[in-house]
Amino acid sequence: MWGMIATWRMALEGVGKGAEMLRQGGDAGDAVERAVREVEDFPYYKSVGYGGLPNEDMEVELDAAFMDGDTLDIGAVAAIKDYANPVSIARRLSGEPVNSVLVGEGAERFAHKEGFERKNMLTDRAKAFYRKRKKEDEQELKPYKGHDTVGMVCLDQKGKMTAATSTSGLFMKKKGRVGDSPIAGSGFYADSKVGGASATGLGEDLMKGCISYEIVRLMKEGLHPQEACERAVLSLDRELKERRGKAGDLSLIAMNNKGEWGAATNIQGFSFVVAAEGAEPKVYLATLGEDGRCTFQEASREWMEDYMRTRMAPVEE
Amino acid sequence: MWGMIATWRMALEGVGKGAEMLRQGGDAGDAVERAVREVEDFPYYKSVGYGGLPNEDMEVELDAAFMDGDTLDIGAVAAIKDYANPVSIARRLSGEPVNSVLVGEGAERFAHKEGFERKNMLTDRAKAFYRKRKKEDEQELKPYKGHDTVGMVCLDQKGKMTAATSTSGLFMKKKGRVGDSPIAGSGFYADSKVGGASATGLGEDLMKGCISYEIVRLMKEGLHPQEACERAVLSLDRELKERRGKAGDLSLIAMNNKGEWGAATNIQGFSFVVAAEGAEPKVYLATLGEDGRCTFQEASREWMEDYMRTRMAPVEE
Repeated sequence: MWGMIATWRMALEGVGKGAEMLRQGGDAGDAVERAVREVEDFPYYKSVGYGGLPNEDMEVELDAAFMDGDTLDIGAVAAIKDYANPVSIARRLSGEPVNSVLVGEGAERFAHKEGFERKNMLTDRAKAFYRKRKKEDEQELKPYKGHDTVGMVCLDQKGKMTAATSTSGLFMKKKGRVGDSPIAGSGFYADSKVGGASATGLGEDLMKGCISYEIVRLMKEGLHPQEACERAVLSLDRELKERRGKAGDLSLIAMNNKGEWGAATNIQGFSFVVAAEGAEPKVYLATLGEDGRCTFQEASREWMEDYMRTRMAPVEE
Repeated sequence: MWGMIATWRMALEGVGKGAEMLRQGGDAGDAVERAVREVEDFPYYKSVGYGGLPNEDMEVELDAAFMDGDTLDIGAVAAIKDYANPVSIARRLSGEPVNSVLVGEGAERFAHKEGFERKNMLTDRAKAFYRKRKKEDEQELKPYKGHDTVGMVCLDQKGKMTAATSTSGLFMKKKGRVGDSPIAGSGFYADSKVGGASATGLGEDLMKGCISYEIVRLMKEGLHPQEACERAVLSLDRELKERRGKAGDLSLIAMNNKGEWGAATNIQGFSFVVAAEGAEPKVYLATLGEDGRCTFQEASREWMEDYMRTRMAPVEE
């Protein structure tokens, strides 16, 4: 058995490459890194890697993480600029016994010394989005305006599980802002004895519940990934609304070490990608029921075409 | 009922100030901030705030966090330089709906605009430690060589709980390195409905278990804080040794919303401070039993005198 699950439609091409590696007996670390790099490299995904939307200074600051579920090794970078593949830097860091989470200039220095590819990650398209947004500056900062972290969980044929994330974070964020994506337990968690989970949404709220860790823990208690995701999302959403009057967007994916998977969200419109032994990578759309439970259906051809058309449409300033 | 628990002997003076505020009906947020500031300001505590030991570039980079257990608001800074009281910056950030975790230059910019006190946090004494260590550079990087995060949990008379941390991190760390202290769920967690916990030790290992969140969760299941701390520390220590052959130092403190407290560690020599209604602030020393259970005794006058003598002794280079 092998499998891979990832947040958002944008993960599809990457999951395709990762799944092929897993099918051939490849390592869950290699596969998840390859899959996330694919998303980082595609310039039209405006929330991850190259082409990612900038902070309020018009700088693209990136966050990424990697976790090995066998050893519990964690590597992460936050607020790193001008490197092509933050997920690969995070994975390299995960092999360090100490100093495995690095931020800002320190992260850049490590990446430079390790020979990672330098790249100006700010595209003309991202600049156009920035200028457009500047004009609309009355508008409240909303994290889901195309601000979607890629988070993945991966199981290889040897039973090893990994998790990885990559994001440019909140559009127009403050310089140095870090969300949940590089934070172990919030943006991601993986334990090969149990399973893995990853999050996307409002990082500031996701971290209030250590939600990826909580989902893995619920799976450890014996819950199916679907049940674990729904229970964790419902519970955090309820707590946030009760205490704060509102809850940010919370969308989660999970897979256990048998390859069973689940997803849950407190919004409409969450898409995710699943590949597993005997099943080609597919995009699913989650529908949030009134009881907080989620149902899924495979994305239609029309939806898929519309998605790419929207992503690649000219930016009207 | 009110109470306060904090990692390490160095918290004693701060806990004294915070406890006095709590006794008079003060707020758990104000008390924990006041208490941590006291530790940050004392130049002879070489792992927190002013006088904290520098990174490999001889820069003092500081991490701190604050969590409000009523609202689950979290604020944190990491790798921030030249501000007197990182914990106060973290607390201010906790009031922001987004952009509430800031690192490096971005954190410094926020602090500047908010009017926080600038201070060169590198003391002559810290420089002497740095030079001495440079000479001994064959030596392996060991986090417990005076590298002790202050972490506190606080309960006020209204039942509000808070947690806060502050640290200069690992001595001779890489620039930009972030440990568990500013990471929600790993270095700290607080939920007024249950309790709070905070960690000190090897950040890279503490975050592998989201250990502060786990302890609060165990208390939510009904465990006494002592039982919750011991179970979480034993379990993470065992997992790390099984998977990695070794475990870094893990020391935890916790308090529930009834003012009951607990502490656990996988090392010898962990000290902590407790104050509660009807009990003056006291320093306890934990002794780790062969079964992994911890027993405590109040620090003797001799131990207390020796502690301050050691902390304030000239640095022999």
